Amino acid sequence: MSRHTVTFLPGGVAVATESGRTVLETAAAAGVGINSACGGQGTCGKCKVMVLGEDGEVLACQLLVERDLTVEIPPESQVRDSSILTKLSVGAALTVGEAPLAQRVAVELAPPGAARHEADAERLLRALRQRFGGAFQDYALDLAALRALPAVGRSQDWRFDAILADVNGVGRVIGVEPSASAAYGLAIDLGTTTIVAALLELETGRVVGSHAQLNGQTRFGADVISRIIYAQENENGLAELREAARDTINHCVESVLREHDLEPDDALAAVIVGNTVMTHLLLGVDPANIRREPYVPAFRSLPTLRAADVGLAIRPGAPVYLAPCVSSYVGGDITAGALAAAVTDSPQLTLFIDLGTNGEAVVARDEWAVCCSCSAGPAFEGSGLDYGMYAASGAIERVAYDPATDTVDYGVIGDEAPRGICGSGYVDTLAELLRAGVIDRSGRIALDFASPRVRVRSEIPEFVLVWGSEVNRAEDISVGQDDIQTLIRSKSAVYSGVATLLDSLNLRAMEIERLLIAGGFGNYLHPDHAVAIGLLPDLPRERIRFLGNTALTGAGMALLAREARQRTEAIAARMTNFELSAVPSYMERYVSGLFLPHTDLSLFPSVTQG
Amino acid sequence: MSRHTVTFLPGGVAVATESGRTVLETAAAAGVGINSACGGQGTCGKCKVMVLGEDGEVLACQLLVERDLTVEIPPESQVRDSSILTKLSVGAALTVGEAPLAQRVAVELAPPGAARHEADAERLLRALRQRFGGAFQDYALDLAALRALPAVGRSQDWRFDAILADVNGVGRVIGVEPSASAAYGLAIDLGTTTIVAALLELETGRVVGSHAQLNGQTRFGADVISRIIYAQENENGLAELREAARDTINHCVESVLREHDLEPDDALAAVIVGNTVMTHLLLGVDPANIRREPYVPAFRSLPTLRAADVGLAIRPGAPVYLAPCVSSYVGGDITAGALAAAVTDSPQLTLFIDLGTNGEAVVARDEWAVCCSCSAGPAFEGSGLDYGMYAASGAIERVAYDPATDTVDYGVIGDEAPRGICGSGYVDTLAELLRAGVIDRSGRIALDFASPRVRVRSEIPEFVLVWGSEVNRAEDISVGQDDIQTLIRSKSAVYSGVATLLDSLNLRAMEIERLLIAGGFGNYLHPDHAVAIGLLPDLPRERIRFLGNTALTGAGMALLAREARQRTEAIAARMTNFELSAVPSYMERYVSGLFLPHTDLSLFPSVTQG
Repeated sequence: MSRHTVTFLPGGVAVATESGRTVLETAAAAGVGINSACGGQGTCGKCKVMVLGEDGEVLACQLLVERDLTVEIPPESQVRDSSILTKLSVGAALTVGEAPLAQRVAVELAPPGAARHEADAERLLRALRQRFGGAFQDYALDLAALRALPAVGRSQDWRFDAILADVNGVGRVIGVEPSASAAYGLAIDLGTTTIVAALLELETGRVVGSHAQLNGQTRFGADVISRIIYAQENENGLAELREAARDTINHCVESVLREHDLEPDDALAAVIVGNTVMTHLLLGVDPANIRREPYVPAFRSLPTLRAADVGLAIRPGAPVYLAPCVSSYVGGDITAGALAAAVTDSPQLTLFIDLGTNGEAVVARDEWAVCCSCSAGPAFEGSGLDYGMYAASGAIERVAYDPATDTVDYGVIGDEAPRGICGSGYVDTLAELLRAGVIDRSGRIALDFASPRVRVRSEIPEFVLVWGSEVNRAEDISVGQDDIQTLIRSKSAVYSGVATLLDSLNLRAMEIERLLIAGGFGNYLHPDHAVAIGLLPDLPRERIRFLGNTALTGAGMALLAREARQRTEAIAARMTNFELSAVPSYMERYVSGLFLPHTDLSLFPSVTQG
Repeated sequence: MSRHTVTFLPGGVAVATESGRTVLETAAAAGVGINSACGGQGTCGKCKVMVLGEDGEVLACQLLVERDLTVEIPPESQVRDSSILTKLSVGAALTVGEAPLAQRVAVELAPPGAARHEADAERLLRALRQRFGGAFQDYALDLAALRALPAVGRSQDWRFDAILADVNGVGRVIGVEPSASAAYGLAIDLGTTTIVAALLELETGRVVGSHAQLNGQTRFGADVISRIIYAQENENGLAELREAARDTINHCVESVLREHDLEPDDALAAVIVGNTVMTHLLLGVDPANIRREPYVPAFRSLPTLRAADVGLAIRPGAPVYLAPCVSSYVGGDITAGALAAAVTDSPQLTLFIDLGTNGEAVVARDEWAVCCSCSAGPAFEGSGLDYGMYAASGAIERVAYDPATDTVDYGVIGDEAPRGICGSGYVDTLAELLRAGVIDRSGRIALDFASPRVRVRSEIPEFVLVWGSEVNRAEDISVGQDDIQTLIRSKSAVYSGVATLLDSLNLRAMEIERLLIAGGFGNYLHPDHAVAIGLLPDLPRERIRFLGNTALTGAGMALLAREARQRTEAIAARMTNFELSAVPSYMERYVSGLFLPHTDLSLFPSVTQG
């Protein structure tokens, strides 16, 4: 049986496979996500792909691999990720620049015994200096590397790998090992509600895998304020919060490493991005003053730490870089996200919104950037809602409702039976129910709506999205009246924050030339629907782009190039913080925003016309 | 009862005392050592001192303090140290320069809330930058300091102390505390046989105390070679050796801290000087290649480490500087010693000899310096001899023998009953026994010598220095035939090493303009006696100076000023290593040196004349 190579686009993942397997099977075995609903029967039509050099589309489940192929997966057939949306797309590759946070360097040293009793360490440092020249201010060995060097050098005939970390501009050798090719790093999004760890190959920038998990801190409070209070009011509160975040991170890291048969020592570096409070808590620094006048954090930017200091379960000497914060409520997730989304240094007036448990907005043009933060709550991450879930496998991420036939068409992440609803699914649901008249502009469910999907359960009105019987579930999946009110409060917090910021800058929404949305709430955010419910300002849709988890992408970029880390620091230094709470009108705007799309319909002409 | 102040010279220690006490009592209470043999009866005459502004000498035990006095203790009345000679003299002060390894800095910060949400850490770093300017390349906070800063800053109204360490030129804040005055550092001599820790005040450079102890590694072997072999041949040998050295250091450190009611956290920095093998073992770096061709160490110079990394039981983030090594057998104790003794950069041709378990010699003039090492064994540290002991309280350090009356006159460190004999006592004994004819030039005890002190015990001839009955001891204190042969081998190793080095450099001994002797073998080394037994070359005596433990003094200097650390690195970089073992004649010279003073008497004209 002969073997062929299938290369998948976009991403460029090349997979060797046996003759006679289908392209769909080949993709699945390699972790490349192609949609499929019928299990490869050729009936659902969801796995359409194009073969390079051939015309038209074919079904991946019907196409047998008989020769080397390059297959392009169109957007509608992509499962961007096999399990969870917010990871960097598996198989994609970020750019590796000069001085990744750590790198595996093959070195060859002169044997010992040359001039002046030069020590092993000196010969290694000299080799690195010759190779990298002025790329590092200076070079040094840490103790672990020093301990390994004499034996590794001699056993390998002085050809071996040095693990070289960029520690604040100094080239620090954190390991000395026999030659190998594996060199991995981690990009970690330390979210208030969800923590995501993505594993990257340091040499190629390729995203190997990822793992996401509910932040263990949520048991101490849903948002940053309640956690600050918990840390203050409980004897070991700060330590408990620290350990919870660290343990969740480590669980994500262990999971993704184990999945790829890697050991903790194989992870050579990590970049962590999180909001200011999360960053404080992870390092065991009391964030109490963040919510006391004059709202000052203990730190914003930090030198590169060591994994052992942070408690990260990777190589103990691995460098850990934390993206710099701007202010008490605008953190490293935003500076890293602004890096990934190229928010700054554009001549276009850009509005960047990151929808997490906190919603942050940045308005930027050229070198100028102003940011603010508002407390959106974790609803768009699927937390605190009856059937809410993170944008992971089994989450309903797209919803369309046809009142004429009373049918709900929905898409599920990972092409499996639905288990719950993620942020983008809720945005769609609200917009669709409003359009159909199931809910009114205040979000109230019309109990007289002529559909069995509208019902009252435990005295609370709800709308059934998925009948359990249809998907072999004991329970139906529904959206309740309380969920709807929670979502409306969240979207109003974001919209009114953005509006207040723009107003303070004397900008009208229509002047925004680019609206970039980031967040971990689904594969796609339907711009029409986001505007229809009043989450986003009513801009021409072509100006709106959904970018996914930019914080995680920015973390990956910072992992792979010093220039990216430097740009992140420059972005943080340049951003001006704007304190929404200092603006009395913010609260009024918030209340006005508790309608769909808004009390003031003139703000949403396209919605009213539609 | 009125109180007066007595100031003691040299050293300048000022002591408050009650009216009517004697100067001797006042000195003893303050730990200032003045000799006394009669217990203050006024009969032995050993406590002679001078009172400033008065003529002549008086006995300190007879002089009552009735007013403020300044008292000068002449060298012959000084007990240089109350317990052990090799420490820096307690009460003396070394010079504090720019950038001690750590310092306590009183800072006052602007309160929070000024421009741009500047974080606590930024305000602290700005204050340090303003104060120290370019003295540090950059400034940073470690995690411990960052964690303490928000609460300490606010509770102290932003006036507090920062503990600022010099970590390879970067000003690193390792602690943030309420204002205090205590700031201590440690100078540690990591000897093959003996470990000494001296406690210094970082602000004043004053030596507060010290503690010495037998290196716990001695149970694995007496010299560096046997320890390298132990590390190689035993599964956990390297770890055992590492722990033994670390534990002894920590015991010394804990003892001296406890003695001064200090906590581990009060020690803010440490400098460790040791030979190359000791330094490798302390850090857990395998020294095996030091004794394998081509005799290359794993490292010579290291960046500043953290106490926690080294396992030092002081403040975990405290910087630990290890003096750089020159070669496999010339280590940081020699570079630090050369710093303390100002061996280099002198227009005088200088020979510097450090007598430890290894004997090292440096020949230097101007910027040129050549060094070598020979295995002297621990005899001059009092180890491996019947009644040998380190130069601590109770050690006989000076010996004179009058054969006419058969009396031995001796001096004991710390003015207590003799417990054993230290290196300088043995040098005196050998010289005196040779002069009196008790031993011949080969060291053999003349059993027909007409004195009851010469006797045979357990079939081994010996000479009794102190009758136990005279000092209330069960045992006499004696020097046996085996001791004498061990001492002769030690002195020959040193002398022949020096002679080989000088010969290789085409230098004659008489060209040496300064002969500087260092080591921990007693308060004084009698130059006539050291030459008489052939330990030192026969130079005019005024060229010979005994400097005590220069390694420890150099460690103290490096602790107190960056310039001293830089000079140590420069000394290490400049020294050329000379390998004695590569010179075939070394062994012949060694054999020729196994006589008193030498086989070739023409090398010792002054001795032969005498």
